[in-house]
Amino acid sequence: MTYCVGLSVNEGIVMLSDTRTNAGLDNISTFSKMFAVEQPGERALVLMTAGNLAITQAVVNHLQAGVWHNGVQQRLTDVPDMVSAAQLVGAAVRLVAQQDGPALGAQGLGFDCSLLLGGQIAGGPQRLFLIYSAGNFIEATDDTPFLQIGEHKYGKPILDRVLTPQTSLVMGVALTLISMDSTLRSNLSVGMPLDMAVIRTGECAIASRRRFTDDDPYYQTIRNGWSQALRDAYLALPRPDFIP
Amino acid sequence: MTYCVGLSVNEGIVMLSDTRTNAGLDNISTFSKMFAVEQPGERALVLMTAGNLAITQAVVNHLQAGVWHNGVQQRLTDVPDMVSAAQLVGAAVRLVAQQDGPALGAQGLGFDCSLLLGGQIAGGPQRLFLIYSAGNFIEATDDTPFLQIGEHKYGKPILDRVLTPQTSLVMGVALTLISMDSTLRSNLSVGMPLDMAVIRTGECAIASRRRFTDDDPYYQTIRNGWSQALRDAYLALPRPDFIP
Repeated sequence: MTYCVGLSVNEGIVMLSDTRTNAGLDNISTFSKMFAVEQPGERALVLMTAGNLAITQAVVNHLQAGVWHNGVQQRLTDVPDMVSAAQLVGAAVRLVAQQDGPALGAQGLGFDCSLLLGGQIAGGPQRLFLIYSAGNFIEATDDTPFLQIGEHKYGKPILDRVLTPQTSLVMGVALTLISMDSTLRSNLSVGMPLDMAVIRTGECAIASRRRFTDDDPYYQTIRNGWSQALRDAYLALPRPDFIP
Repeated sequence: MTYCVGLSVNEGIVMLSDTRTNAGLDNISTFSKMFAVEQPGERALVLMTAGNLAITQAVVNHLQAGVWHNGVQQRLTDVPDMVSAAQLVGAAVRLVAQQDGPALGAQGLGFDCSLLLGGQIAGGPQRLFLIYSAGNFIEATDDTPFLQIGEHKYGKPILDRVLTPQTSLVMGVALTLISMDSTLRSNLSVGMPLDMAVIRTGECAIASRRRFTDDDPYYQTIRNGWSQALRDAYLALPRPDFIP
């Protein structure tokens, strides 16, 4: 499995992915699921993938080679705005579905892929999209300023509770790591290391890109600090008075 | 969907279930999913169900009427020990599978049910089992002193982090409510009110049985207290220093 989460808050975008892939429990590998396109000051886009690795790598390969869309061969370095970028990713997904879908179906396999695309292109606002395996997409909004793909349930409650568009970018970084840590602890098919990219609103550039390994000091601080904080909070809860 | 969780700690057993059922999003009802068998001082057993409501109600009906098992018609009031109780529930599940499985299959429906059975019968230890739709079962252990059925992922991280066999019974009560609250917030198909039963080790009796409605003061305290504690804990986390 995979867990990827993207936040879009007023101060910018945080994208975080794990790197574990498995084709059966005895065939586990590390693959980056994060791809960035950057022309600093002009555009910064980060793509994260979940699902069948052959499918998602084919999507990325098509995007790098250029995808024919609306009569023109385009790359993420060419598109004029973020909606066009999401449409281009959707077009790449549909192209792979067309090429590989029938053969996958013949093997009894579904066409399983989903992607998060976040970023900003000069002249337009930052945006964060989730592209489905059908090539269509949804966008994060102020009501729900985050999107997730893959094994999303373990890490959702904390985002539901505390994330708002007013959350600062640095706290957004901490929050994605907490959400990921909850997932890592509860599901072995999601694994370290982690890839993170941060884009600050208006900069059209990647402010920080970082790989977190198990011994990353900040990740350790978050992991241990959060566990301890939860234990403390839980011990401080009022006791029920209806148990004799 | 459903969420039910059972804890087995040194001091006893806590069982908590939601009550929401849905046959399509426009057909939502409240059904208790918790059933108790009690002969105070001699036995106390609590059963919770998840899955297709017609299947789980049929299982409960069979258990109430008596199930032929090992050549004898037995009820949960008759079985000599907890393992026999779990076997009897499994036998009831297999009986329903035999009776309804083919017709369900003809409609393209799977045989979807799972149950948690916790309790104690005099002369034996308290035990907590998860019975699968195949009628076989697993037991909670000191390594993993909780079992869940239904929509289990949202409420699992907090249990993974803090629950041990040494957790007190009253804190176990608080913990199941936190786990349930995380699920309620993130998944609309799990809903109030909640049913709880608590069995204290050695008593072979139900120490407390309680229905929590939205306005239950203790549930409100836990819900608001936990949300606030998480927010405080999150705000107290160290900021990353790698974001320029």
